[in-house]
Amino acid sequence: MLNFSFQNTTRIHFGEGKISAISREIPIDAKVLVTYGGGSIKSNGVYDQVVAALKDHQWFEFSGIEPNPSYNTLIKAVDLIQQHKIDYVLAVGGGSVIDGSKFIVAAACYKGDDPWHIVSKQEKIQQALPLAAILTLPATGSESNTGAVITRDGHKLPFGSPLVRPVFAVLDPTVTLSLSDRQISNGVIDAFVHTIEQYLTYSVNGKVQDRFAEGLLLTLIEEGPKALQADTKNDLDVRSNIMWAATMALNGLIGAGVPQDWSTHMIGHELTGRYGIDHARTLSIILPAVMKVRRTEKHDKLLQYAERVWQLTTGSDDEKIDQAIALTEQFFTSMQVPTRLSQIEVGVDAIDELLDLLEQHGMVALGEHQDIDLAVSRQILITAL
Amino acid sequence: MLNFSFQNTTRIHFGEGKISAISREIPIDAKVLVTYGGGSIKSNGVYDQVVAALKDHQWFEFSGIEPNPSYNTLIKAVDLIQQHKIDYVLAVGGGSVIDGSKFIVAAACYKGDDPWHIVSKQEKIQQALPLAAILTLPATGSESNTGAVITRDGHKLPFGSPLVRPVFAVLDPTVTLSLSDRQISNGVIDAFVHTIEQYLTYSVNGKVQDRFAEGLLLTLIEEGPKALQADTKNDLDVRSNIMWAATMALNGLIGAGVPQDWSTHMIGHELTGRYGIDHARTLSIILPAVMKVRRTEKHDKLLQYAERVWQLTTGSDDEKIDQAIALTEQFFTSMQVPTRLSQIEVGVDAIDELLDLLEQHGMVALGEHQDIDLAVSRQILITAL
Repeated sequence: MLNFSFQNTTRIHFGEGKISAISREIPIDAKVLVTYGGGSIKSNGVYDQVVAALKDHQWFEFSGIEPNPSYNTLIKAVDLIQQHKIDYVLAVGGGSVIDGSKFIVAAACYKGDDPWHIVSKQEKIQQALPLAAILTLPATGSESNTGAVITRDGHKLPFGSPLVRPVFAVLDPTVTLSLSDRQISNGVIDAFVHTIEQYLTYSVNGKVQDRFAEGLLLTLIEEGPKALQADTKNDLDVRSNIMWAATMALNGLIGAGVPQDWSTHMIGHELTGRYGIDHARTLSIILPAVMKVRRTEKHDKLLQYAERVWQLTTGSDDEKIDQAIALTEQFFTSMQVPTRLSQIEVGVDAIDELLDLLEQHGMVALGEHQDIDLAVSRQILITAL
Repeated sequence: MLNFSFQNTTRIHFGEGKISAISREIPIDAKVLVTYGGGSIKSNGVYDQVVAALKDHQWFEFSGIEPNPSYNTLIKAVDLIQQHKIDYVLAVGGGSVIDGSKFIVAAACYKGDDPWHIVSKQEKIQQALPLAAILTLPATGSESNTGAVITRDGHKLPFGSPLVRPVFAVLDPTVTLSLSDRQISNGVIDAFVHTIEQYLTYSVNGKVQDRFAEGLLLTLIEEGPKALQADTKNDLDVRSNIMWAATMALNGLIGAGVPQDWSTHMIGHELTGRYGIDHARTLSIILPAVMKVRRTEKHDKLLQYAERVWQLTTGSDDEKIDQAIALTEQFFTSMQVPTRLSQIEVGVDAIDELLDLLEQHGMVALGEHQDIDLAVSRQILITAL
């Protein structure tokens, strides 16, 4: 096991009816900005629950945070905060709203030249307003972690700080019953690949971390398809298990003390930035190619994945690995996401530009060994065609 | 899954050499009390590392916190704190030192008639000094949780508060290399039974919690015996996996959203209180009896335990359960702990007195269904003879 430091301070309120907890969690004298996205929270009852819970608070709202939240949108919320002297932000939504709100709480306290430097220059965040989250779409884990991804002019870039980690997060699985199949499937794939990025590397004999990661993968494989099937999609246990698995997949725990990859994410980000492809769908396309191209480097963990997650007990090691990769693709297909660039109409002629973007963003030494250079990324993209 | 709220704020510093982290973790202007036990930290190098790390701090020390820490000892540390206006406590030791220090930090700020009421009357703790921990014996999980058990006049009683949760904890597995076989085996058993108390109840379909618990049990079953065998006992990976598993076994995570039992612990506490038996050895004696007596109520989870932890795939459900209980006992025996009261020379004539003690401590409705009354506890004790 590698040395590590780990802390996750977010208080989780999990279960049906837990949105009302915000009344006592947010200080009564706070001036609150409620941030959200396209208004689905108004049709699924979440907005009404927030209004009811905040009846004794002074609060404002900022809507219109889009998927892959953009700097240009978020900076308007910062203006609103300064105008009304807001001192607490409550993000109500999925990863995009929460990620965007992380930028908002940091930018609102930024004292330098240009708050974009938080992202573009990775300037250390010195101060941020307190942020809380009501999660409506289990996927990114943003509700209890320190990271966020912000988009500007087609560039999708990460930043992070313990100061932007939500103080508390409400996870009410009933809220997810109104999600579309596409949203649910994207969320399950996102959580699955988050787990894989922290698991499918090389072994450091971290038995707890490995078994926790395998537990999350098994849960997502079992429960994900049920959330798309007519007879099981409204089962609250299914939704609860997906929601808790997605939070645990990226709250820092399973990645503590083990190597991490993240090449699938970094290559996938360019597909989203350039073509606007849903984040999860870039992952379902790139991950199988990463498994194939990095088969030698990841051999031992691929075999462990085959045996423990897919319960493959017969055949040679290579056969087990082949089958595990095929079963991963089948799982993705059952989740109604693409596994090839051709399915999203991106062809071989796009690869040079994607590699240029990777280079431009400094993504030239990816993976757990930092040896996925542009040539290897090219191989991965070709394999994904 | 049941509704839950979960938070664990303790910052973990894990790995070789991490004790030096206390220099920057403890505020430089703090007046620190270093608490410890019988002095083993002076022979294994931990004390010297603490002294080196605190060279720029003002600090005092209080030694002699015994296994099953007693009120009479702890209250002396409270006097020392008041005398020197100490404002930070650093516990260096295992669960007893950390549990005892939790009482110390709460009692030091207690404003009522008698600090023992924190335990005896479960008075809510309003304030506590900050506490940090350097863990030397992986077992209780006390280094990152809110609970503690204190002994007075033969009575072993629990209390807890988020205010006594350590701010940070250092887990350096090299420190555990100097432990005796008995200490290691006690620690592994304690962590194992902590996990079982939160797992072996009835199913609420909490898939993440179940798989995490199973992952901890598998890790302890694999690594525990290695820590006792000459050729593997100095393997740092073995020690690291045991240490991290023990922390995760009782940090609140695997118990969030699922029912909990704790009858083995409550009955075991009376054996320690009355006869001074090591805590873990009371658990290894009582747990198999609980499994046998509560076989019907725990049927589904016992079967899942048999199939997933012991990989029992053939035979009837009852046969699998029989075998799982037998394998649990074999595992305990391989860890060199007793599985019967007769092995610690407690006979049938002791049972009435143990039941009196349970009654006296209000332990008359134990278990996940609160239906283990004194008659069922009697059955359990008889079964454990």
